[in-house]
Amino acid sequence: MNSTRDIEALIDVMARLPGLGPRSARRAVLHLIRKRALLMQPLADLMGQVALTARECLNCGNVGTTEICDICTSAKRANGQICVVEDVADLWAMERGHAFKGRYHVLGGTLSALDQVGPEQLRIPRLIDRVSEEAISEVILALNATVDGQTTAHYIADQLEGRVTLSSLAQGVPIGGELDYLDDGTIAAALNARKTF
Amino acid sequence: MNSTRDIEALIDVMARLPGLGPRSARRAVLHLIRKRALLMQPLADLMGQVALTARECLNCGNVGTTEICDICTSAKRANGQICVVEDVADLWAMERGHAFKGRYHVLGGTLSALDQVGPEQLRIPRLIDRVSEEAISEVILALNATVDGQTTAHYIADQLEGRVTLSSLAQGVPIGGELDYLDDGTIAAALNARKTF
Ligand SMILES: [Zn+2]
Ligand SMILES: [Zn+2]
Repeated sequence: MNSTRDIEALIDVMARLPGLGPRSARRAVLHLIRKRALLMQPLADLMGQVALTARECLNCGNVGTTEICDICTSAKRANGQICVVEDVADLWAMERGHAFKGRYHVLGGTLSALDQVGPEQLRIPRLIDRVSEEAISEVILALNATVDGQTTAHYIADQLEGRVTLSSLAQGVPIGGELDYLDDGTIAAALNARKTF
Repeated sequence: MNSTRDIEALIDVMARLPGLGPRSARRAVLHLIRKRALLMQPLADLMGQVALTARECLNCGNVGTTEICDICTSAKRANGQICVVEDVADLWAMERGHAFKGRYHVLGGTLSALDQVGPEQLRIPRLIDRVSEEAISEVILALNATVDGQTTAHYIADQLEGRVTLSSLAQGVPIGGELDYLDDGTIAAALNARKTF
C-alpha cells in the first residue's frame, strides 16, 4: 500500500513515544486524520515550532526557549533556595504545587554505577558552582525515593556539607491518600515522622 | 512563563489525543524535546505531510492519500466480497489478520437513536449501491459485539436480504486465550458454536 506509507510511518513514530504503544498510536493517528484541519495541522506546526526553539537552560537544565530559562532570570526567585530534581517533569510537578518560590537545578538523571552515570553527566559540578555564584543558603534535595535517587542525594549532600542548609521533602501520607492503597514503606515513614497535636 | 508558552500549548494539544492524558502528554513532550533533532522535527514534518495528504476514500471510507483507496482500486481484491467494519482501526485489524482478500466498507460508527446517527450518516446507502456496482456476492458484517453494533448489523442485513450472502465473524475463544480471562458472554458463545471432532 504505497499511498498510505506516510500514515504507516507516522503510526510507527508515534508508537515510540513513552506512554503510547502500537494500538494507541493507531487510534491517535486516526483521530488526528479525522480532525486533520482543526487538530493535526496545528499540532504539526506547534511541534515543528517547539523542535526549532526548545532548548535546555544552560544554568539549571530546565526546558524553555531561551539560553537561560525564565526561572533562572526571574529576580523574584533569587531567594537563596535551590530545589534539586532529577527531571524536568519533577520541576513541573513542583511548580504545579505552587509552594516553592526559589530556583531549580535539574540533574537529568541519577548517579548509577551500572549505567556509568557519574557526577559530570548530571550537572552536579554546575550545582556546586551555583551555590557560590547565586549566594544559595538552602539546597532542597527533591529526588525520587529510589535507591539511585537516594544515593545521588547523599553524594550531593556530602559535596555541599557545611556550605548550605540541606533538606529533603517530608515523606508521609499524600493528601486524600487512603492507607489501604499506600505501600508499606510510605506508611512506615509517615509513622516515624508522626506529629503530636 | 512566556517563553515556554509553545511547550505548554503542545502539551495541552497532545493531552487531548485518545490514549494520552496530561501526565503522559508531559512525558511524551519532554521525550520529544530531548530528541528534538532526531525525533521531534521528523515527527512534525511527517504529521504536517499526512495532515495535507490524508483523505477518506470516497468509495469505502478507508483512509489513504488518494480519492479512491488502494484496496478499492486493486483488481486482485475484486473477489465479490465486502467486509463491513465500524472504523478504519477495525479495517487495519482485519488486514493484520491476512485472512480476508476482498474489499471493505467503513461505516464510520454505528446506528444510534440516542446520538441521532441514522443510515445516511454511516455510508449505508453507498454500501447498498456498491453491492450492485461491484457485483458483490457476499457481505461479511464484522461489527463489534455491542448492542449498537448488532443493531447496525441487523439493519444492514434487512436492507440486503435476498441480494447477497450475509455472514458475520464467528464468536469464540481467541487463539491463546485463557478461559479464566474471558467474559461470560464469550464463553457462552464459544460453547454454543462448539465443533465436534
Ligand atoms: Zn534555568
Ligand atoms: Zn476504498
